[in-house]
Amino acid sequence: MLEAYLEHGRTETAVFEFFIRKLPGRRGFLMAAGLEQAVEFLENLALSPDELDWLRRSGRFRPATIDWLAGLRFTGDIDAIPEGTVFFGDEPILRVTAPLPVAQLVESRLINILHYQSLVASKAARMVLAAPGRRLVDFGFRRAHGAEAGLMAARASYVAGFDGTATALAGKLWGVPLYGTMAHSFVQSFDDEAAAFEAFARARPDGLTLLIDTYDTEDGARKVTALAPRLKAAGIAVAGVRLDSGDLAALSRSVRRILDEGGLDDTTIFASGGLDEDDLLVLVGKDAPIDGFGLGTSLTTSSDVPALDCAYKLQEYAGLARRKLSTGKATWPGRKQVWRRYRADGVMAGDVLSTHDDAVRGEALVQPVLRGGRRVAVAPTLSEIREHAAREFERLPEPLRRLQPFAYPVEVGDRLKTLTEEVDRRLHVRRAPP
Amino acid sequence: MLEAYLEHGRTETAVFEFFIRKLPGRRGFLMAAGLEQAVEFLENLALSPDELDWLRRSGRFRPATIDWLAGLRFTGDIDAIPEGTVFFGDEPILRVTAPLPVAQLVESRLINILHYQSLVASKAARMVLAAPGRRLVDFGFRRAHGAEAGLMAARASYVAGFDGTATALAGKLWGVPLYGTMAHSFVQSFDDEAAAFEAFARARPDGLTLLIDTYDTEDGARKVTALAPRLKAAGIAVAGVRLDSGDLAALSRSVRRILDEGGLDDTTIFASGGLDEDDLLVLVGKDAPIDGFGLGTSLTTSSDVPALDCAYKLQEYAGLARRKLSTGKATWPGRKQVWRRYRADGVMAGDVLSTHDDAVRGEALVQPVLRGGRRVAVAPTLSEIREHAAREFERLPEPLRRLQPFAYPVEVGDRLKTLTEEVDRRLHVRRAPP
Repeated sequence: MLEAYLEHGRTETAVFEFFIRKLPGRRGFLMAAGLEQAVEFLENLALSPDELDWLRRSGRFRPATIDWLAGLRFTGDIDAIPEGTVFFGDEPILRVTAPLPVAQLVESRLINILHYQSLVASKAARMVLAAPGRRLVDFGFRRAHGAEAGLMAARASYVAGFDGTATALAGKLWGVPLYGTMAHSFVQSFDDEAAAFEAFARARPDGLTLLIDTYDTEDGARKVTALAPRLKAAGIAVAGVRLDSGDLAALSRSVRRILDEGGLDDTTIFASGGLDEDDLLVLVGKDAPIDGFGLGTSLTTSSDVPALDCAYKLQEYAGLARRKLSTGKATWPGRKQVWRRYRADGVMAGDVLSTHDDAVRGEALVQPVLRGGRRVAVAPTLSEIREHAAREFERLPEPLRRLQPFAYPVEVGDRLKTLTEEVDRRLHVRRAPP
Repeated sequence: MLEAYLEHGRTETAVFEFFIRKLPGRRGFLMAAGLEQAVEFLENLALSPDELDWLRRSGRFRPATIDWLAGLRFTGDIDAIPEGTVFFGDEPILRVTAPLPVAQLVESRLINILHYQSLVASKAARMVLAAPGRRLVDFGFRRAHGAEAGLMAARASYVAGFDGTATALAGKLWGVPLYGTMAHSFVQSFDDEAAAFEAFARARPDGLTLLIDTYDTEDGARKVTALAPRLKAAGIAVAGVRLDSGDLAALSRSVRRILDEGGLDDTTIFASGGLDEDDLLVLVGKDAPIDGFGLGTSLTTSSDVPALDCAYKLQEYAGLARRKLSTGKATWPGRKQVWRRYRADGVMAGDVLSTHDDAVRGEALVQPVLRGGRRVAVAPTLSEIREHAAREFERLPEPLRRLQPFAYPVEVGDRLKTLTEEVDRRLHVRRAPP
């Protein structure tokens, strides 16, 4: 496709927008994430000598194409909805303005980056809303789809309000707080569970959390209380215990009782084991005495909705708005903006989607990020993004905050409707002359 | 955990096995994949000076732990079920035999690699069985969960019998056949669809496939037949057309008729657009004249089953078999082997899971891969793995080959039952002395 563009001189400015067509049933809202990695990808866009050589040797491309690829850099514009912002269907979360072949070439990786982090941030947001005040930790690297997914899920869930992750590299790269864990294998490697607890406690005295379900959870809790005085004498406090199987509501109660009776009132209970936001809602609804949760597979694979119906579509080329009409997949043409209105109490009241030059009241969500390949401002820190996301939760309409069905109003602005009619008229004329 | 192991001298030989606990409802069998990447990970296991420095500066670890990590290499044994082999629940697809801290440290990444590729190979296998004789191409990079997932999905689906991928790097790294594609944006960037077809054809004359659904599919097909004579005069044949939306069964018939009437009998029809194996079964069942399919999101996210219930568990430490008893998650102890029996006609008759030293008739599936960190044999090529997978399909019981429910028999051998009783007796005695 690139070669055809180059050969036919179709290198004028193209505008592509990335958006989610329609929210899945179990998502009342989505949360944008991954923009920083998308921008880093564009800033570093270049083919290596080794890659160019491979393309050359493939014999598939003309020398002029290889030369063009050798000089490839991203010098276009990017506009985007900031990370941590709540968004809805058809709203462009990223706009690319660049020569057509460049904007086309970056498509797959841009989608790959933005889709996944937004998917995970949106799932994590549900967990944060389901378990207010509880500590939430990402445990999901192992069943994430590859290493990059595991790492990016740690970032995206932190954006949405998680407290941290067990993926160490996210701490090294971005300062995401790290939470270690103790595995069943540690306990199993000892012949005696209590001996395993004591060994772990003496090696890791700070923020000590003991996993107590390897054989029998209540038995495990009793061993912890029996061990606690000896550890206390050595200056070690049992910060928490972890339950990873069984009826967590019932077990958390009995374990709480055992701990309290053993004088371990300050020891927290942490739960994990195949949980999702529905489980959190149930456990929190039952007032289970659980202080924090480890979320794994359901978070990092967004297991109930493992993909969003997203698209990266040409909206304008050489100054003319464009549109795709394929059955069930028609798109709104042109460069667009989203304006958000708020009620007097700060709660989101509704969005308007229209052409970027329309005059609509409200907060414009799509913001300039790159101009001529350069950042227009210093990127927000991960903490700033996370604080922005936290403010977004406060502005969510009540049903969305309670994870209940609610059709948030997104209106289409007049200018966008007019532009769409114009494009259809133009295409129609050219497709089937009267 | 590592620090606790080191401090307490728990560095004797541990045996961990990786397995899927239970097959999900929509998977009658699974296919192993990812072993080559798992072995490469182990062969290259080492922390970089930068990583060691970061760990040191974190202040979380004792100097002795950092020193141990600086010297970390994998010098243990690996046994595994070869890639492309069909397997079932509880069957160990990988066994790690190494000092306990090493075997524990590699856990997360080993699971991350093996789980995802086996997940995708198992999904791809269903698609291959659903559409025999059709060309299947992986189009799923964009919505895969990150870059590594997109790349590994190209490999895993090729193992399972796909014809190729649109992910170029899989061609560069492993020689997976590459299939290019034409996007709607290419068509949209021209004011006239026929002009777009001609431009693409002249730039990419070999294996030319035109995407004809940007505006109206049947219209698109008519434009192709109108254009064909002029292209033919230039020595260019329209190898195929692609449909990406609408009622594919009906459209493929009308497009086939239009192409045939236009003298394009040899032009194939390729279909894509959110398809999964159920769609393939329906389209093939309806005898839709579709020669090949592009599979995207459903393949690379394994959308109906985005994660398998897998585990990496300690089965033996310091010569003693171990077992976890957590509610609903109990495991079979010890080093295990899987023996597979076949009927006279070569079809798989049933498996026996037992301790590796049991005497069971049948083909032993778990094979030595690394001894002392070194390969016992040259790794099979990707083509060899793919051929092995193709033979596995021939040996599948008929209901599994037709993607129908079928409980393939996996028996537990006598020695494994005896060992489990022994372990329980030992654990019981230590947990609650009589």
